[in-house]
Amino acid sequence: MTATDPVANLQVLIRCPSVTPAEGGALSALDAMLSPLGFKVDKVKATAPGTSDIENLYARLGDDGPHLMFAGHTDVVPVGDEQAWSHPPFAAEISGGELFGRGAVDMKGGVACFVAAIARHIERHGAPKGSVSFLITGDEEGPAINGTIKLLQWAAERGERWDACLVGEPTNPDKLGDMIKIGRRGSLSGKITVHGVQGHAAYPHLADNAVRGILQLTQALMDPPFDGGTDNFQPSNLEVTTIDVGNPATNVVPAKATASFNIRFNDTWTAQSLQQEILRRLDAAAADGVLRPGRAPLKYDIVWAERPSHVFLTRNNALIASLSSAVESVTGQSPKLSTTGGTSDARFIKDYCPVVEFGLVGQTMHMVDERVAVCDLERLTVIYETFIEHWFANAGL
Amino acid sequence: MTATDPVANLQVLIRCPSVTPAEGGALSALDAMLSPLGFKVDKVKATAPGTSDIENLYARLGDDGPHLMFAGHTDVVPVGDEQAWSHPPFAAEISGGELFGRGAVDMKGGVACFVAAIARHIERHGAPKGSVSFLITGDEEGPAINGTIKLLQWAAERGERWDACLVGEPTNPDKLGDMIKIGRRGSLSGKITVHGVQGHAAYPHLADNAVRGILQLTQALMDPPFDGGTDNFQPSNLEVTTIDVGNPATNVVPAKATASFNIRFNDTWTAQSLQQEILRRLDAAAADGVLRPGRAPLKYDIVWAERPSHVFLTRNNALIASLSSAVESVTGQSPKLSTTGGTSDARFIKDYCPVVEFGLVGQTMHMVDERVAVCDLERLTVIYETFIEHWFANAGL
Repeated sequence: MTATDPVANLQVLIRCPSVTPAEGGALSALDAMLSPLGFKVDKVKATAPGTSDIENLYARLGDDGPHLMFAGHTDVVPVGDEQAWSHPPFAAEISGGELFGRGAVDMKGGVACFVAAIARHIERHGAPKGSVSFLITGDEEGPAINGTIKLLQWAAERGERWDACLVGEPTNPDKLGDMIKIGRRGSLSGKITVHGVQGHAAYPHLADNAVRGILQLTQALMDPPFDGGTDNFQPSNLEVTTIDVGNPATNVVPAKATASFNIRFNDTWTAQSLQQEILRRLDAAAADGVLRPGRAPLKYDIVWAERPSHVFLTRNNALIASLSSAVESVTGQSPKLSTTGGTSDARFIKDYCPVVEFGLVGQTMHMVDERVAVCDLERLTVIYETFIEHWFANAGL
Repeated sequence: MTATDPVANLQVLIRCPSVTPAEGGALSALDAMLSPLGFKVDKVKATAPGTSDIENLYARLGDDGPHLMFAGHTDVVPVGDEQAWSHPPFAAEISGGELFGRGAVDMKGGVACFVAAIARHIERHGAPKGSVSFLITGDEEGPAINGTIKLLQWAAERGERWDACLVGEPTNPDKLGDMIKIGRRGSLSGKITVHGVQGHAAYPHLADNAVRGILQLTQALMDPPFDGGTDNFQPSNLEVTTIDVGNPATNVVPAKATASFNIRFNDTWTAQSLQQEILRRLDAAAADGVLRPGRAPLKYDIVWAERPSHVFLTRNNALIASLSSAVESVTGQSPKLSTTGGTSDARFIKDYCPVVEFGLVGQTMHMVDERVAVCDLERLTVIYETFIEHWFANAGL
């Protein structure tokens, strides 16, 4: 009966105050759940200049293939206004059928359920015919430099190979069973700087107002749309996230303006082809001056943010079918196979093996009073247990 | 032979380092030129909370009408990079036929010439049949709170009334004789704040990106043009002088964005009618969301800068003709009657009497190596002297 109760598992984990980058005892608690089940547990500390040291955990049960990985994190975002919580954020109190606490859905809840699922599987059937591993980071909510990327490298260097991965992030918008994530859009960010000519607001023809330039460039980025969406993805979307000039003088037109943007893109594009399209738009807008009549081509430069997130789509039918049928058998609902939303650590894992994502309902994630329905913890545990059975059955085919 | 040499007058004035708000000895030097000519000189100190105390000067020759005022300032802008000057900025050195120094054209040069002009007039013809006064401020290049406005009020409260005013600011773009200013555009500034809804860049439909809102509003201010110009004025023009958001996170869309703008407007508008037009445009853009499809009307507010500058046009033909004929008789050129450029203290004087502006060539104003051709000083003095003769002759008609 070790660790088979997801509610008890989650209460233990929530009571570890593991706000990134603090480990808070969460990985040790996980170790204490997994080791008795037969897992070989490694704590992996990662460091990098200018970042906090991060504790991560890798645990494997079994020596042979097929090899299923469960990936997730035990770090959580800050509690925000602690006075505004109706239950203390690290107390894991249950009230009205809901368990309250930071990380309840994002994603100590997912971890707690998968631990319970594998514990029940072992209890009923013994260890799976193959291997199951946990790849758990403490740096998902932080800069993500000392987390999943390094943990994957660390394991791969030791010869670890995986056949499939399930990420336990909260994927359901409204209720358990709504949505499996089978891919993610890419994300690309950049910062444009326009170089104009300072001057007097009464003599704008003698100056070159950088605000006119930045408006012209940002407009070209926002219109027309980059695409109309694809079979598996919604349309790519660009948001200008900030424009800054910092000119305090109303009688002066400024020489310099900056704008940052972020684009979530689908499989119409690679990060590289999208950068080319963006440069094409900017160059065209710089040359053709609606807002800058009679001016020479606009001078601008662009700096791309490091590490764009690449778009990916998982096409492994056995993996998707194993998860989808498990969800349907428990919820009676056929989950939507989606690629919406933000990026997740799945974007790193997809370089090693096919990856899908399914977890709790995300509505309260990152909010005050983050909480999970107790019955959802039980149902997700059954879904995960069913998935493990289906996957090993299918993987053996 | 007192003060009849504009070059000597200007050298004395430049050697007084009167960078706003410092008097620097400039007004005392002017007093020392005017008192021997029979002017009654008053130094007028003006103060206001939160501003530097400012010395101003009012001097009058004669007791009766008609009454001609010469208006100007002896304060100067900072020297900038002093090492970059080819002659020290307060040395008033002459080299290659040019007199170098801060204020040479803006506008100690104009003051020096008018002093020389009235001195020559007195020497040749005696005091004019009427009155001549100098209204000289030390706060034209500063906030202009303790300068011309207060000096006009001070004089008016003592019963001073004027029939016409010449402002000696540098009005010529290229060469002496190019341009008389017979009016000025108005100037109106405002700051818009857009209130959106913060959110995640991957879920922009759940947020309301304030950058989209500010782009939509600023675009409505810039297009279409406010007017096509009028008989005496160029088209009104609006410049967005800054846009600021200050959002450092590329995965967040911001809730707030601000933009400031300045519009130079012609006599199509009053400051009030222009404010109404701007509000009409903003309200229309807030309701009709090209960049914000499907969103509720944009929430924004606007704060107008204090004290708009009102547009004005001088229609006193005798005044304009007296100046224009004087310019033409010396330069052989018919000066353009213009309303272009920035505001000047003429906008305050026009509430008391008709006002025109004519002075030196403005090309080096506010720059390193500000300088004036020595021959221009002599020619401007003759123009001013001729103007005085013409004006008193015309005013007596």
